[in-house]
Amino acid sequence: MLRARVSLLLGILFLASLSVSFGIVHRQQHHESQEESDSRTQNNPFYFSSDRFHTLFSNKYGHLRVLHRFDQRSKQIQNLENYRVVEFKSKPNTLLLPKHADADFLLVVLNGKAILTLVNPDGRDSFILEQGHAQKIPAGTTFFLVNPNENENLRIIKLAIPVNNPHRFQDFFLSSTEAQQSYLQGFSKNILEASFDTDFKEINRVLFGEDETQEETEEEGVIVELKREQIRELMKHAKSSSSRKDLSSKDEPFNLRNRKPIYSNKFGRWYEITPEKNPQLKDLDVFISNVDMKEGGLLVPHYNSKAMVILVINKGEANIELVGLREQQQQEQQEEQEERLEVQRYRAELSENDVFVIPAAYPVAINAISDLNFFAFGINAENNQRNFLAGEEDNVMSEIPTEVLDVTFPESGERVEKLINEQSESYFVDAQPEQQQREERHKGRKVSLSSILGSFY
Amino acid sequence: MLRARVSLLLGILFLASLSVSFGIVHRQQHHESQEESDSRTQNNPFYFSSDRFHTLFSNKYGHLRVLHRFDQRSKQIQNLENYRVVEFKSKPNTLLLPKHADADFLLVVLNGKAILTLVNPDGRDSFILEQGHAQKIPAGTTFFLVNPNENENLRIIKLAIPVNNPHRFQDFFLSSTEAQQSYLQGFSKNILEASFDTDFKEINRVLFGEDETQEETEEEGVIVELKREQIRELMKHAKSSSSRKDLSSKDEPFNLRNRKPIYSNKFGRWYEITPEKNPQLKDLDVFISNVDMKEGGLLVPHYNSKAMVILVINKGEANIELVGLREQQQQEQQEEQEERLEVQRYRAELSENDVFVIPAAYPVAINAISDLNFFAFGINAENNQRNFLAGEEDNVMSEIPTEVLDVTFPESGERVEKLINEQSESYFVDAQPEQQQREERHKGRKVSLSSILGSFY
Amino acid sequence: MLRARVSLLLGILFLASLSVSFGIVHRQQHHESQEESDSRTQNNPFYFSSDRFHTLFSNKYGHLRVLHRFDQRSKQIQNLENYRVVEFKSKPNTLLLPKHADADFLLVVLNGKAILTLVNPDGRDSFILEQGHAQKIPAGTTFFLVNPNENENLRIIKLAIPVNNPHRFQDFFLSSTEAQQSYLQGFSKNILEASFDTDFKEINRVLFGEDETQEETEEEGVIVELKREQIRELMKHAKSSSSRKDLSSKDEPFNLRNRKPIYSNKFGRWYEITPEKNPQLKDLDVFISNVDMKEGGLLVPHYNSKAMVILVINKGEANIELVGLREQQQQEQQEEQEERLEVQRYRAELSENDVFVIPAAYPVAINAISDLNFFAFGINAENNQRNFLAGEEDNVMSEIPTEVLDVTFPESGERVEKLINEQSESYFVDAQPEQQQREERHKGRKVSLSSILGSFY
Repeated sequence: MLRARVSLLLGILFLASLSVSFGIVHRQQHHESQEESDSRTQNNPFYFSSDRFHTLFSNKYGHLRVLHRFDQRSKQIQNLENYRVVEFKSKPNTLLLPKHADADFLLVVLNGKAILTLVNPDGRDSFILEQGHAQKIPAGTTFFLVNPNENENLRIIKLAIPVNNPHRFQDFFLSSTEAQQSYLQGFSKNILEASFDTDFKEINRVLFGEDETQEETEEEGVIVELKREQIRELMKHAKSSSSRKDLSSKDEPFNLRNRKPIYSNKFGRWYEITPEKNPQLKDLDVFISNVDMKEGGLLVPHYNSKAMVILVINKGEANIELVGLREQQQQEQQEEQEERLEVQRYRAELSENDVFVIPAAYPVAINAISDLNFFAFGINAENNQRNFLAGEEDNVMSEIPTEVLDVTFPESGERVEKLINEQSESYFVDAQPEQQQREERHKGRKVSLSSILGSFY
Repeated sequence: MLRARVSLLLGILFLASLSVSFGIVHRQQHHESQEESDSRTQNNPFYFSSDRFHTLFSNKYGHLRVLHRFDQRSKQIQNLENYRVVEFKSKPNTLLLPKHADADFLLVVLNGKAILTLVNPDGRDSFILEQGHAQKIPAGTTFFLVNPNENENLRIIKLAIPVNNPHRFQDFFLSSTEAQQSYLQGFSKNILEASFDTDFKEINRVLFGEDETQEETEEEGVIVELKREQIRELMKHAKSSSSRKDLSSKDEPFNLRNRKPIYSNKFGRWYEITPEKNPQLKDLDVFISNVDMKEGGLLVPHYNSKAMVILVINKGEANIELVGLREQQQQEQQEEQEERLEVQRYRAELSENDVFVIPAAYPVAINAISDLNFFAFGINAENNQRNFLAGEEDNVMSEIPTEVLDVTFPESGERVEKLINEQSESYFVDAQPEQQQREERHKGRKVSLSSILGSFY
Repeated sequence: MLRARVSLLLGILFLASLSVSFGIVHRQQHHESQEESDSRTQNNPFYFSSDRFHTLFSNKYGHLRVLHRFDQRSKQIQNLENYRVVEFKSKPNTLLLPKHADADFLLVVLNGKAILTLVNPDGRDSFILEQGHAQKIPAGTTFFLVNPNENENLRIIKLAIPVNNPHRFQDFFLSSTEAQQSYLQGFSKNILEASFDTDFKEINRVLFGEDETQEETEEEGVIVELKREQIRELMKHAKSSSSRKDLSSKDEPFNLRNRKPIYSNKFGRWYEITPEKNPQLKDLDVFISNVDMKEGGLLVPHYNSKAMVILVINKGEANIELVGLREQQQQEQQEEQEERLEVQRYRAELSENDVFVIPAAYPVAINAISDLNFFAFGINAENNQRNFLAGEEDNVMSEIPTEVLDVTFPESGERVEKLINEQSESYFVDAQPEQQQREERHKGRKVSLSSILGSFY
């Protein structure tokens, strides 16, 4: 009881602080100054700017970073508490040293090329992954990652689902480097000697390089340089799966972009693989999407019926608008105040490496400020349905009967239907339609849209 | 460690407050004064009187209310933290405006008739529901609800399973009314104009009614009146499923009361559909029950093997007795005190709209003070088994071998068996059996049972 | 926000206290004094000495004890919060009185023989269980347990998975004894009279023995003595399944030791049944193992890919070493400190009744100080893979290609491979190999290993 009250009190304070941060969101007038917009971005609990990644390891060859916990930012996305996002980047001709972790990973290549090798006690599998490839790495699997390219950086994003604790996981490396110790060094001398049937000095020399008579041979960190011969050797044993369109294999990587986009027009293309289509995604109940948008394109307002989406900007810039509601729970605490329930706009300007969370059922729209590519993980994905609120196809509003539109909106049902049918495109539309003449744009940015779009296809 | 200690401390205080509230429960003498009984009702963590519902929306046509969180009342039912209960009531000839929510709903009609329309991006389904009909509304599905009756109120109870957060969900309405804003209003002018390919003033006029030159046309709230023609039109497209006995459809509503009751005699009738029988219930792992009891009837002591039951009184009044144990955990904290472990009776007088939670494995009995109808959701329902402790059928005590009864109870096994076999009815029995002459009832209520029962069938 | 900060603060304090307790773990020199080792044992969050069991019931015939909560000891094993461990011990010719609980149990016989009877509302099943037998008791099932042996104690370990609350469960007994009340006594006089259709005085006399005119006939506790005739009678109706090798039955007990060991050599034998092999284990997603080790044997370093293991020492003594990492989260809080990530050794000396938790992916090794038998539950077991780090078979290190070993370790890949191949045994090896001459052991214990091993097979 007391405990419940403490939680309650903390809850109220939390909500109070939230409402102070956001203030009233939607007003009649849309004269948003740049300052307002920026301050909103910073307080937006769904927005994780790229500096919200915490560096786990970093050296001159690359880095490994983990995004802050989702559930510590907002109660509204507490069901993401079992999920973490990891970013890995490495230079050409490098290797991420063998490790395993207490988490399942779903790995996706954003840029570049990789050789991913999964090592099991009874053998190993090597795969060549290219942009758009995804692969599940089951918890506890020892693996290493090569960037075999001579000049392109490798960039990977991983969804991590920890197994020992809902939100924490750890990397266990076999090597000792300047950055960390080999986990084998955790065992006592006696156990190591008996296990390897070898004198401890020899073990120390061969595995840990801690023989005092020797030079320090430790690597500078967990990402190291490889020689071309070493890469060629590793390449030989790796399976290329980039041309495969078959998604049904339980163990092999699959490429998001080898399939037809689910939505496509001159403003954008949407690639997606759902749990229904791939056994690895079914295991995790996750969908993955990759979306290209043309500068000046708009992904029209829509919501996911049940999936929570973690969006990662790969290239370009975008404005995102997410619509939530002012906390109802807050009112629950207070005495039955009969105030109007207001909607709340969460807006952010997104650029490369930024992450944005779209809760299930929350309407969202994305406006590409430049040519844009983003990637998304959808959590709780099975049977998720995307409900569009504008456009010709999959528009949930166009399925509401006239009699109901009649009483739902101030104008007659017929007039609402006319409005709904005005937009002839679907999914992706022109963010500054030709009717722009009808009023002065108060924001300066003028883009010659036609010239851009010409070069898109 | 420190954190654990704080939790521990709060836990102890919580338990301490519990034991102060309840005091010693079972005594030899049963001279319970009305006061004692009332005070217990108020402190009973399993009892949620109808005023524990928080109003989300209310106007002259009806209301939408949500019950307080279960897990904030007692640690003993913490596994209900992902479940909320919603009540909806509306007058004849009304519509609950189109909305969607970030929760799965399992809807059951307690009274009246409804047209439920589920709107998907690729079409819609309308169903006519009558008393006892149940239907799952998947999270994020836009739906609206009509009370097409000319004179009967519609009353619906919904089990809600939120998707973004374990215990919170929100309703997203398309309309702007006095009570709340349309979620479409959360988007900026630019995005709305581009999405609808229409000037913002027109959008504002047609969808939000916020054209300043016009009269205020907003609805008073989210439940509105419909004309008979509108209802007739909506009725035309709705499928009636009230006569179907088939439960196997994944998408269609099913009626609890179209099947044979699982228990039935002159004191009561129990209707139930389990996850094994219906795919919608299997998805949610929930069973639903509807029970009629005659005034003076007693549902004999029994317990559910694994399901936690949320009981909602639909009509009438009842006394419920639930048996738990004094907290063992409390003793765990203290130094090995060798006190006797006492049972604890949780008693409540239930009337219309009250909710009562029966944890799995806790024995319970219900005594109908007047003709009674209640509804129940069973959570964690698959393979649940109801174990009766008295009566002829499904009586777990009658399956214990004589040699074990011998040492389990103070009298001989044969004598215990004789006692167990005394009751010839099953499930529902007479709460004031004919042997009542054998002692003076100290509670006044005298009911001529035979006259009531005569009119029951 | 505030709440998050409080959690954070507690988290930091918690972590700080951890690091103070453990200090730097691995040093070049292994001069561990006995004191250091002991203090580590006490602060080791994965080690639960046998006095961490809390007694629920105890009398001269036996006891029932529950282990402290796992999640209260360390955040690193928070995902065990839904699991509890129960120990039951009883003398020959005794009965644990009929009860049910709000938890699923997975019962395993460690020593002795038992008759387990599961009582359902429509019948009962009796099974004779011997050492190594396992059986699921579904939540809410009334059961009783006989030790039919004339001179051997019965010892049982149960994994409990509560249903109403993640970590608490309660035992509901039918009998009233000096230790606890019958749950039937929780119901009021009126309800009992109506249910049994019998006068309350008679009910009281037959079931509770609380007739004031009578002598006190209560049992001393929930474990009682049985006469040989009673045991013979109960034995008659019990099915023996000790010779069955079939694991496919959903309801019958199965014996761990009736199958071929999965690993076996002169130092040890490992028996295991996985969820893939048995429907009861599949339901619970648990594997069970039973391991014999010879004095002086070593289970070489290995890790489980995804299963969290709860190990219970049945007989003998062992040293266990578990390797984790210093908390990365801690560093996350602080400003990007570029310190080296150190490994952390968790060491414990285990003896009979001790429990030790091995998180998934954490490397572990076990050294048998005397002849040893331990039992283990693996949680999250489906598709778990055991990765050995030494020995000939299932050694994940031997699957890493030479080119990668080259850059992973300070010496050349070939020399690492030579080291890996030195050990010709697998899984279990000699903890004090013959090369022991190559240095002076600083710990005294001298064991004539050959003489022991001779008597093992």
